[in-house]
Amino acid sequence: MQKTLNIAIVGLGVIGGSFAYGLKQQSDYPVHIMGIDHDAATLKRALDAGAIDEGEIVNNLILKKADIVLLTLYPSGVVDFVETHREEFKEGAILTDTTGIKGDIVDEVLPILPKGVDFIFGHPMAGKESKGFAFADADSFKDANYLLTPVESNKEENLDFITDLLKSLSFKRVRRVEPQIHDEMIAYVSQLCHVIAVSLINSDKTGRDTADFIGDSYRELTRIAKINGELWSELFLYNKDELLGAMDNFEQQFQRMRTTIENEDESGLISLFEESTARRIDLEKSDSKLSNER
Amino acid sequence: MQKTLNIAIVGLGVIGGSFAYGLKQQSDYPVHIMGIDHDAATLKRALDAGAIDEGEIVNNLILKKADIVLLTLYPSGVVDFVETHREEFKEGAILTDTTGIKGDIVDEVLPILPKGVDFIFGHPMAGKESKGFAFADADSFKDANYLLTPVESNKEENLDFITDLLKSLSFKRVRRVEPQIHDEMIAYVSQLCHVIAVSLINSDKTGRDTADFIGDSYRELTRIAKINGELWSELFLYNKDELLGAMDNFEQQFQRMRTTIENEDESGLISLFEESTARRIDLEKSDSKLSNER
Repeated sequence: MQKTLNIAIVGLGVIGGSFAYGLKQQSDYPVHIMGIDHDAATLKRALDAGAIDEGEIVNNLILKKADIVLLTLYPSGVVDFVETHREEFKEGAILTDTTGIKGDIVDEVLPILPKGVDFIFGHPMAGKESKGFAFADADSFKDANYLLTPVESNKEENLDFITDLLKSLSFKRVRRVEPQIHDEMIAYVSQLCHVIAVSLINSDKTGRDTADFIGDSYRELTRIAKINGELWSELFLYNKDELLGAMDNFEQQFQRMRTTIENEDESGLISLFEESTARRIDLEKSDSKLSNER
Repeated sequence: MQKTLNIAIVGLGVIGGSFAYGLKQQSDYPVHIMGIDHDAATLKRALDAGAIDEGEIVNNLILKKADIVLLTLYPSGVVDFVETHREEFKEGAILTDTTGIKGDIVDEVLPILPKGVDFIFGHPMAGKESKGFAFADADSFKDANYLLTPVESNKEENLDFITDLLKSLSFKRVRRVEPQIHDEMIAYVSQLCHVIAVSLINSDKTGRDTADFIGDSYRELTRIAKINGELWSELFLYNKDELLGAMDNFEQQFQRMRTTIENEDESGLISLFEESTARRIDLEKSDSKLSNER
């Protein structure tokens, strides 16, 4: 019989809660799910929902039992948690996080990591614009991408194990990538999108009945303008240089389009549209989630 | 018994085709649907699918029977069609269009409109990134907004009639607005969104495995980067001044965010996020389509 995996989830917000539900629903591994959250009401809710089997407000018994510790906290929270609890992890435990930036977190966590503990840095490409356990839902992981940023100290068997565990949660592609490449890509595919959504909705003139005029494009482009400001300001500032670089590239294309419109250059516009259409079609071919939708 | 409405749809692309299906599916009005399309294969397909009852490549008998003529053509196509067929419309016919800009179309169509024909200018806020009859689907109209831009010559009973007919197709809000206001709003809620999507995807560095990194934000923000370039270059240039104005407003917010990030002004960033979150929550409260999703 397969040994039960003791998994501690630290932070039962929308991401931690979704992992809790997903781990309970998968059938590849027998699991015992433990939650640590500073909010007693959240722990009770997660227990009542069957998302966790036990919970603690501050660690007492959980970390010493945990084979896996999943840290679903803000970037600064991950560093603080490792520092505070470095003597409390089980020998051989695998720690892993879900924070949206990697370079600086890796640099801050590795020096304070106790011996005998392996930290696999990770990032699920599945977020929600709403925060809190109430919005947790394992379905958002289905066919989503997952990024791991291995470091030299990681054991290959632990990387493989976490990869298999993530696939049991229906993540589709679990890709390994250098922390710096991760941060550059995330600056573009995620952070820049949030900058755009926020700028777009904030650029509406006030007092207009905008809702009567919109279609799905505007609905989609502003969905992520509803944003957890405390979390995202941290993510932006941890990744400042990469984000500013992605913003520069966007700005250049935006200005290129502006000039084309100003000059009433119809064939120039059509070229830009042909380029974007070809890029989007390529994306749909390569993206497993979009491929499955077809 | 209610008299059968003879409706001509001119241009069986994705929008014209969706109207054809929708009109066939609704049960408020007995209808006879006639299609005019330059492509014989499209007409056959629409006939075989039961979307239309008869079709012609060039008008022969259809327009003289049509109580309503729905022009689902490019902006320039609408003007050309009215000009070419001005002697062929039935006395008392209602013409209506679905083009994405209004001011210039109104100004070009009204002087060439024959007596005894009423042109109700309209615009469904429901598009698709794919073109052609094959992608026609009346479901995309469900709970969508519709804009009418009445002109002085319109008969009130015709405006009401078109409004009721649109509601039978499950459009939710049919709003009347000045052509100029329409164009300003559309520059912001639709055209600017397309500029952003195109600029975003075109700003990706080539040779990266972007698909492995993306989440739903990037999927959503680039959906409309797959774009019918001939149509949208026309729409952009017809609405040049309004679009450039909307681009300026966006640019200003984008730069405001840039400065805040450069200065590592965390509380400034949080303020911008609070503003965007409040605006998006307001939008969700006012938007019937988003309200229904909850």
